[in-house]
Amino acid sequence: MQVPSPTVREAASMYGTAVAIFLVILVAALQGSAPAESPFPYRIPLDPGGALELSWNVSYVQETVHFQLLVRELKAGVLFGMSDRGELENADLIVLWTDGDSAYFGDAWSDQKGQIHLDSQQDYQLLQAQRTPEGLVLLFKRPFGTCDPKDYLIEDGTVHLVYGILDEPLRLLEAINTSSLKTGLQRVQLLKPDISVPALPSDLHTMEIRAPDVLIPGQETTYWCYITELPDGFSRHHIVMYEPMVTEGNEALVHHMEVFQCAAEFESFPQFSGPCDSKMKPDRLNYCRHVLAAWALGAKAFYYPEEAGLAFGGPGSSRFLRLEVHYHNPLRIQGRRDSSGIRLYYTAKLRRYDAGIMELGLVYTPVMAIPPQESAYTLTGYCTDKCTQLALPPSGIHIFASQLHTHLTGRKVVTVLARDGREQEVVSRDSHYSPHFQEIRMLRKVVSVYPGDVLITSCTYNTGDRKLATVGGFGILEEMCVNYVHYYPQTQLELCKSAVDPGFLQKYFHLINRFNNEEVCTCPQVSVPEQFASVTWNSFNRDVLKALYGFAPIAMHCNKSSAVRFQGEWNLQPLPEIISKLEEAAPQCPGSPGQRTVGPTLVSISEDRG
Amino acid sequence: MQVPSPTVREAASMYGTAVAIFLVILVAALQGSAPAESPFPYRIPLDPGGALELSWNVSYVQETVHFQLLVRELKAGVLFGMSDRGELENADLIVLWTDGDSAYFGDAWSDQKGQIHLDSQQDYQLLQAQRTPEGLVLLFKRPFGTCDPKDYLIEDGTVHLVYGILDEPLRLLEAINTSSLKTGLQRVQLLKPDISVPALPSDLHTMEIRAPDVLIPGQETTYWCYITELPDGFSRHHIVMYEPMVTEGNEALVHHMEVFQCAAEFESFPQFSGPCDSKMKPDRLNYCRHVLAAWALGAKAFYYPEEAGLAFGGPGSSRFLRLEVHYHNPLRIQGRRDSSGIRLYYTAKLRRYDAGIMELGLVYTPVMAIPPQESAYTLTGYCTDKCTQLALPPSGIHIFASQLHTHLTGRKVVTVLARDGREQEVVSRDSHYSPHFQEIRMLRKVVSVYPGDVLITSCTYNTGDRKLATVGGFGILEEMCVNYVHYYPQTQLELCKSAVDPGFLQKYFHLINRFNNEEVCTCPQVSVPEQFASVTWNSFNRDVLKALYGFAPIAMHCNKSSAVRFQGEWNLQPLPEIISKLEEAAPQCPGSPGQRTVGPTLVSISEDRG
Repeated sequence: MQVPSPTVREAASMYGTAVAIFLVILVAALQGSAPAESPFPYRIPLDPGGALELSWNVSYVQETVHFQLLVRELKAGVLFGMSDRGELENADLIVLWTDGDSAYFGDAWSDQKGQIHLDSQQDYQLLQAQRTPEGLVLLFKRPFGTCDPKDYLIEDGTVHLVYGILDEPLRLLEAINTSSLKTGLQRVQLLKPDISVPALPSDLHTMEIRAPDVLIPGQETTYWCYITELPDGFSRHHIVMYEPMVTEGNEALVHHMEVFQCAAEFESFPQFSGPCDSKMKPDRLNYCRHVLAAWALGAKAFYYPEEAGLAFGGPGSSRFLRLEVHYHNPLRIQGRRDSSGIRLYYTAKLRRYDAGIMELGLVYTPVMAIPPQESAYTLTGYCTDKCTQLALPPSGIHIFASQLHTHLTGRKVVTVLARDGREQEVVSRDSHYSPHFQEIRMLRKVVSVYPGDVLITSCTYNTGDRKLATVGGFGILEEMCVNYVHYYPQTQLELCKSAVDPGFLQKYFHLINRFNNEEVCTCPQVSVPEQFASVTWNSFNRDVLKALYGFAPIAMHCNKSSAVRFQGEWNLQPLPEIISKLEEAAPQCPGSPGQRTVGPTLVSISEDRG
Repeated sequence: MQVPSPTVREAASMYGTAVAIFLVILVAALQGSAPAESPFPYRIPLDPGGALELSWNVSYVQETVHFQLLVRELKAGVLFGMSDRGELENADLIVLWTDGDSAYFGDAWSDQKGQIHLDSQQDYQLLQAQRTPEGLVLLFKRPFGTCDPKDYLIEDGTVHLVYGILDEPLRLLEAINTSSLKTGLQRVQLLKPDISVPALPSDLHTMEIRAPDVLIPGQETTYWCYITELPDGFSRHHIVMYEPMVTEGNEALVHHMEVFQCAAEFESFPQFSGPCDSKMKPDRLNYCRHVLAAWALGAKAFYYPEEAGLAFGGPGSSRFLRLEVHYHNPLRIQGRRDSSGIRLYYTAKLRRYDAGIMELGLVYTPVMAIPPQESAYTLTGYCTDKCTQLALPPSGIHIFASQLHTHLTGRKVVTVLARDGREQEVVSRDSHYSPHFQEIRMLRKVVSVYPGDVLITSCTYNTGDRKLATVGGFGILEEMCVNYVHYYPQTQLELCKSAVDPGFLQKYFHLINRFNNEEVCTCPQVSVPEQFASVTWNSFNRDVLKALYGFAPIAMHCNKSSAVRFQGEWNLQPLPEIISKLEEAAPQCPGSPGQRTVGPTLVSISEDRG
């Protein structure tokens, strides 16, 4: 049978009818109601041009995030959402779009090819759309978890926000070609802890650490180094809080900032203000590495607990500080001037406890290695019961903040506290960790660690782009697995880390050599990195390395400083035995599914009369 | 502060008020509507006494099961549901209960201690409650998957139904003490395939294979053996269908039945009707092992595809048949007589194709072993491309049914078809497999296998109760991993199975001996079971065995019969490489969550006026 082809006019009419039916089916009434927790304490620019700005708040009671998206120059629409690592494939999205007549808001998702589809379960709920002098403001909310397998689960740690700008009206979401849009990503800690602000002392002083009048280079990445010093005779004080000072207009350019204290063994440090990789930078600045304060995009002020402060000044500590500012300038804007920095709040009335920083995880040694072409390979470092027994006071220490650290292949980091062989609680976890977003994060709940407790830090790496094994070490192409935990009261324990026993690693090399009948020299005369480089990475050699790391005894670094160990035998220690693991919390599905709409929302934009 | 204690009367009044509030909050109106697909084609008694009987139907379009539960003598209520392996812990339940005044129906779940809780998401929907002359009939439905982490996912394969009988009214579900109830389990294939019944030939004959007038022994388990024979001169026929004949009243006692054909090499077999383990049973009956028909509780008639039939009779095949009936009599009922059996439907007009049975999985050899104390250890057997290339016709074979087989520790079985290194589809899967429930199951979709395809059969075992390794073999305490696939057209290929290369297994014993510095003799002079028995099962030895099975070359059995191989080199074959795996299908969440009720349903029982 031959079907007569419709004329162009008929076809256009059919198409129009189809769209109309689509709209009748999908359009639902706007469920407008202002959120309980206005205003929005957190704010971040999404794109380097500042066209999109996100504000949000978090309700842990409702397990819901309220988002307020400001679109400064709306064209035909906008995409916004979240994905595992900031890609526009497999993303959980909202889309605001127009077909030329009306505007629609819908919960959507993109498949592994980046194709966008309307979600059959609408979990983002539009609350308000308002035109303001600044631009269009969309107010919407979403539960942390939705139990919709297409949706992103909002968890503690890094969240990769994605966005895209629609230039043309469209009839169907499927018509969006994400590869031709202006898109981008922004990393942020979405679930800020809901801790109350600690009281501040009455004799609060401030000190602004800022590089005056920096001309931001017109290149994508600049680390700016600036040396400053404490006043002569500055006595011992406690830092109790610090906050960022970002020069107005540069909010999208200043990516992160850190203040380091220089090493006490040098009398003085030369003045410097310039790129950290400049040939003009004095070598001595490499000795300014003790973190005093760290801020990253989206973070707010950092407070020490009321009982504790971070000591600085006075005898035994350097008067010299180094400020490092990371400018992220992908649009290569020229001629922009900046004086961003960090404002320290400190007191001379020392608080009851000094705060300390302890390093957990893996020793920087090549014996811990990741085979190449692994998409999710996990290494684990231990702080053993024997070390905490020796080094912690009977009343314990209290961890209140954490900064995670790996090099380029790090993808997840988690530290768990175990007691009597049973995992008790997560100290900190980032399942979407990025080495490009390392901030000091307050813990939602202070974790107390007592003598005899075990701290287990696991890092997961992706070595899909590597040809050879990635060994542990200081180099940028080597790897680390570190959790710097901030705690009080300060103890002598600065380092509690482990690595596999080197003798057992030699057994491994010997064993796989014999099994594979290879003549490759992995004899102990060559270095461990060379031995790893000579391994043929078949599935047996990979699996047996994993078996080794899960079985062999460890060498512990239970150290007062990077060189001084606590007394005791720290080699050939047994791996801590864990008889009960923490269960993965089942995602909480929203209680009343009846509230969800079943299709996109027709948007009626109200005018701002303020 | 001291709280004055209430008088007994006050307390009773307070309690009453609390219950009333509870009811006001939880009781929702009955959403009554008859299901689209009455009546219920499948039926099974739940308890050995026959007090509970379940009927059901399956809608693959709606992805929903409609249940009809008949409660013959209702006391205070009943529990019914599903759990992983038939335990009353971690079960997904419906509860019908009364507080003395009203009756309630609710979706509930039990925790790992067996404590019952009302589910916050009500996914079982009560459609009708009716008093009939036979008893109370409850009609309710549930989607296959609910996306509620507390709910059981209804999948293909075995489902363990659980039940319990409530004798006393109760105020709160939490008051139920499951350990004091009369409870039990019943295994069933809930998701029967929705295949249309093939047309039957016009010259259909029937033959009833039944043991006349068996006195069922008053013990829990009896396998009854009965020998019968085909008529003298019975020529070659095709079995096109068979169905169970269960003696009325014994529905809860007859657990499964199989008809075997005896070996052709013996002229005759002695008459016998008695327990299969009887000392009186002639040894020759052990040569009656070729399956002609198999039925298990809850199954209905078995049909061959229209193009194929199972040949029996004629020259080259034995005239003797053995019927085996498994009586499951936990109540130890005495004096019950039975003549259950299987009715074969056959035709003299041979169909186009003979059907065949092929054995996939692992060779019966001790080189494939499961360490002790493993809760989910998987072994895999392969039918390689080289074997299918040699043995299958270019037009392929078509698998239409499957019978899975392991010994006591088997928990899951799956066979997957791979082509060009990519998994294509599941042939059959049972994620709740039980060695006590081995039936021949029609596939929902016929799977075609072509020369060069690979069939991968994986079995998962639980050896939590074993002290030593469980090796492969024929013994009941040894293990098997077999999928008997029923297919057409019949080929010469009867066996396509594998096992690890024995030389590589010796490398493993050597390697772990050296690694562990052990003096245990695992030298090749002793047998493989003895070598496995001498292994110290630390995590390294376990993980490396797993690594070996995932890496070492295999020995293939690509056989015409159990002894005759196809020509070629079958030792030291490479493991099939799989570059892309089938994704686990994400559970389909019910589309319109608004239909669900939020609490239990107040039950109004209608009287049967029929």
